[in-house]
Amino acid sequence: MKKLIFALAGGDRRQLAAAEALREDGHVVLLCCLEKLEPEQTGLKKALGAADCVLLPLPALDREGGLNAPFSAQKVSAGELLDALRPGTALLGGRLTPRFRAMAAARWLTAVDYYEREELQITNAALTAEGALHLAMEETETSLLGARCLVIGYGRIGRLLAGRLRALGAEVTASARRPEDLAWIRAEGLRPAETGRLENCLPGQELVFNTVPAPVLGEERLRLLPPDALCIDLASAPGGVDAEAARRLGLRSIRALGLPGETAPKSAGLAVKETVCRILTEQGVL
Amino acid sequence: MKKLIFALAGGDRRQLAAAEALREDGHVVLLCCLEKLEPEQTGLKKALGAADCVLLPLPALDREGGLNAPFSAQKVSAGELLDALRPGTALLGGRLTPRFRAMAAARWLTAVDYYEREELQITNAALTAEGALHLAMEETETSLLGARCLVIGYGRIGRLLAGRLRALGAEVTASARRPEDLAWIRAEGLRPAETGRLENCLPGQELVFNTVPAPVLGEERLRLLPPDALCIDLASAPGGVDAEAARRLGLRSIRALGLPGETAPKSAGLAVKETVCRILTEQGVL
Amino acid sequence: MKKLIFALAGGDRRQLAAAEALREDGHVVLLCCLEKLEPEQTGLKKALGAADCVLLPLPALDREGGLNAPFSAQKVSAGELLDALRPGTALLGGRLTPRFRAMAAARWLTAVDYYEREELQITNAALTAEGALHLAMEETETSLLGARCLVIGYGRIGRLLAGRLRALGAEVTASARRPEDLAWIRAEGLRPAETGRLENCLPGQELVFNTVPAPVLGEERLRLLPPDALCIDLASAPGGVDAEAARRLGLRSIRALGLPGETAPKSAGLAVKETVCRILTEQGVL
Amino acid sequence: MKKLIFALAGGDRRQLAAAEALREDGHVVLLCCLEKLEPEQTGLKKALGAADCVLLPLPALDREGGLNAPFSAQKVSAGELLDALRPGTALLGGRLTPRFRAMAAARWLTAVDYYEREELQITNAALTAEGALHLAMEETETSLLGARCLVIGYGRIGRLLAGRLRALGAEVTASARRPEDLAWIRAEGLRPAETGRLENCLPGQELVFNTVPAPVLGEERLRLLPPDALCIDLASAPGGVDAEAARRLGLRSIRALGLPGETAPKSAGLAVKETVCRILTEQGVL
Repeated sequence: MKKLIFALAGGDRRQLAAAEALREDGHVVLLCCLEKLEPEQTGLKKALGAADCVLLPLPALDREGGLNAPFSAQKVSAGELLDALRPGTALLGGRLTPRFRAMAAARWLTAVDYYEREELQITNAALTAEGALHLAMEETETSLLGARCLVIGYGRIGRLLAGRLRALGAEVTASARRPEDLAWIRAEGLRPAETGRLENCLPGQELVFNTVPAPVLGEERLRLLPPDALCIDLASAPGGVDAEAARRLGLRSIRALGLPGETAPKSAGLAVKETVCRILTEQGVL
Repeated sequence: MKKLIFALAGGDRRQLAAAEALREDGHVVLLCCLEKLEPEQTGLKKALGAADCVLLPLPALDREGGLNAPFSAQKVSAGELLDALRPGTALLGGRLTPRFRAMAAARWLTAVDYYEREELQITNAALTAEGALHLAMEETETSLLGARCLVIGYGRIGRLLAGRLRALGAEVTASARRPEDLAWIRAEGLRPAETGRLENCLPGQELVFNTVPAPVLGEERLRLLPPDALCIDLASAPGGVDAEAARRLGLRSIRALGLPGETAPKSAGLAVKETVCRILTEQGVL
Repeated sequence: MKKLIFALAGGDRRQLAAAEALREDGHVVLLCCLEKLEPEQTGLKKALGAADCVLLPLPALDREGGLNAPFSAQKVSAGELLDALRPGTALLGGRLTPRFRAMAAARWLTAVDYYEREELQITNAALTAEGALHLAMEETETSLLGARCLVIGYGRIGRLLAGRLRALGAEVTASARRPEDLAWIRAEGLRPAETGRLENCLPGQELVFNTVPAPVLGEERLRLLPPDALCIDLASAPGGVDAEAARRLGLRSIRALGLPGETAPKSAGLAVKETVCRILTEQGVL
Repeated sequence: MKKLIFALAGGDRRQLAAAEALREDGHVVLLCCLEKLEPEQTGLKKALGAADCVLLPLPALDREGGLNAPFSAQKVSAGELLDALRPGTALLGGRLTPRFRAMAAARWLTAVDYYEREELQITNAALTAEGALHLAMEETETSLLGARCLVIGYGRIGRLLAGRLRALGAEVTASARRPEDLAWIRAEGLRPAETGRLENCLPGQELVFNTVPAPVLGEERLRLLPPDALCIDLASAPGGVDAEAARRLGLRSIRALGLPGETAPKSAGLAVKETVCRILTEQGVL
């Protein structure tokens, strides 16, 4: 394996974990825009200019389209960032926008979105499922053992979460819309429900985990939950729980985004690093 | 729900189970070409001519392209079968051949292959996984508890089987080729191996379950297994274990096809019935 | 470790497995009264007279109190057996009777019952649990996946069986009498029932496994089961299912004794061998 | 069921949960010495004097032998408490001391220790196991998925914890001293280790959970752990991890006592309530 110079810009503890793992492989790693977590930093321009590979966080960009750098006082625009790179630098980031890709292309740079790799999304789903257990334990005064739980949606996260809940002794119902997902739910020995007909199984649920990014829990359905139920919305934007309605009804509802970065940043950063190295190997860079 | 006349021709115990379930729903069911299992039969022409819906078994056809009817003394060709149907009869069967479809089309009949439905394949995979446990218990003098097991391939069957083996206390390694399947294996907490590099994990395995329909276990690899290992090949044709080589090496190797029909015919037949009813409902027949 | 001469008399495949394992440890093993399984035998008197340690099967004695030797044409009385031993020979067997012990004592021999060791009973319970799954798969045309199962009694076998059933996707209720066992059932995330009040949970059960050696399933309760339910009675004598009543009601009921010896003789024999070696080590013989 | 007057004195959120559950059963519940959690209180003397049954927390007494009331500004001695009770009042508490029992007896009162009930200890063990998962998630930046974990001791907590860790995808080794517990570990399909010979399995462990109340992890053994390992000591006094040595070695070690009261107070309080009601029913009070 070749030894490269990596610049890691912005992000959170996951970037630190990725940096550590890259160093263990023998690479040189320069960090920037992470100064609140790790004092040893390199100036942005110097780091990006020296790098064979630039690794941006997940997500790479903040709401304004600049570098996502919550642990830095610096504000770096996409243009500044891209201008600092040498031609031929490998550029990778998570959840890149079309605008960012276009800006990179205009500078003859190809930006690769590592989060498009299914293996990373699966690992992330597993970390999210575990993080959701963590959050549920944190936010309730009851045990998961014996708790009546509903998992809405049986995609990656739903599947990994439902199995874990049952293993901890919860009474789990998993819902899905497509016949094949309902078949998976039955094949795993879980109690199935149709997402379109949740009305029958909402009463009595103590914990509801939503993984569907579409309005599945509106006011009418929320009304069917017991008053001390807790909703945890794991779905990416726009989410699936009507938080406004929940508030009106006095129901607790938590929107949990980016759980792996919060509850298991080291494992999450390692997963990014592994996917990035696989991409670089496939492209002959590593 | 409308009450229909079903004709079920050929097949095995699964057809009987489907018949029973259809009768419980209030339909009239005529059986034919199943006389060795169930004496109460209707003549083929009479049954097919009277039916609103004709249900053929899984697979629908035998090697010669005629009706698959192992529990009947009758030989029914595809032509005879199709000629007996009235126009407009709903015709469903499992694993239909292009030739059969063409013959049906030539008679203005549309044959639907219920086995193309993913939900049925998933349920079948779950029944196959359980049947594989059954077979392994049957064929060994040791317990699955503590047994070193390798599951090759992490598709539907592989996934459902690997989880069950581990739950029974086996030491399970699951192999896959694609990075995303390897990520799934890790996400489920199983030990991963790359199908392309099985050499390292074959020594010491007591039970090998193959689910990959491609030559993954040839002579060289089989040689690495302990002499009392058992290979169970669950993959559809052409299978993945070189049975000839296994015999030369004195290794036990079993080709297990159509397990659900053997080990859980009632559940398998019920699954067919449910998928068929879903198809008929979608098509407005039911 | 010292190398000893073992004589293994009577028994079944478990004795063969124990013999093989003892030989792998470097001991000399003489087999007798097993000629229908293994032609290479030593005469009873010669074998017993030469042995440092005599290993009798589990159970050691048949109904008439002689050597339990189902795979032999020979009939050996307890007296003949004991008279053939030299003084000082280590004598071990499973489920020894007071009468046999007394006869041994009268000859200045101490007989040790290896089945009194709890670790062997636990391993046996695990093998019995797996054997019960095997039997249930064998005897039903439906899958365990989705089957409604009742496990009566939450001792060693009940606990190990209930967990395995659930892991295979069955809907499991476990019953117990003592509050602490009911607490265990809940702690493992299973549905609890009181053995004294089974009436409520019997209707609808497809599979009933009894592990309680007392009359828990009499006619009145059996009547509550669906007609196609299967009872598997795993309890030692006198069992807990009224087989007569089951027959009258047309219910299928199977008395399964000595399952490990049938379904996993190799693992069961190995477990005996390990316990025996532990005993001999503790006594300074090995 | 009779409707009684309960006085609940001292304790934490668990007492609130018990109070709520008792009220749901229709009893009158007076709370005292809990004013920091629940403003609605009755004066101690009035409450105790009016009660048919007095329920003290778990543990009932603080280090000085007075009422354990961390959420109260009041200091109540055992004498004051007992003097306020009418003769014939049912008095229950958790982990009573011989001194307290003697003091009660001197006033013709019989104090019952509900924590001596095995069913409560089992439920508490299940809540402790779940709380230990919670704590481990809280205190690490890595996931339990894939983590190498060692559980020392295979009593109630060890067993329930080891199973849950494995279900979350950790690589679990469980250790025990007695052959029967090692047999249980194998019967559950876990990797066994002897507590007396942990040296071989300590290197590489990322998480160590101790449940043995005896010095099992002294300096020499702690040295074998990787520097970023985390030890969670769940054993009751005196614990089993040498915290001093851990500090010297720079290892993180957490002593976790009374986990259920912290992580699942509602479930823990409910379990106390159920055991107390069972005791009162047995004694004819309820």
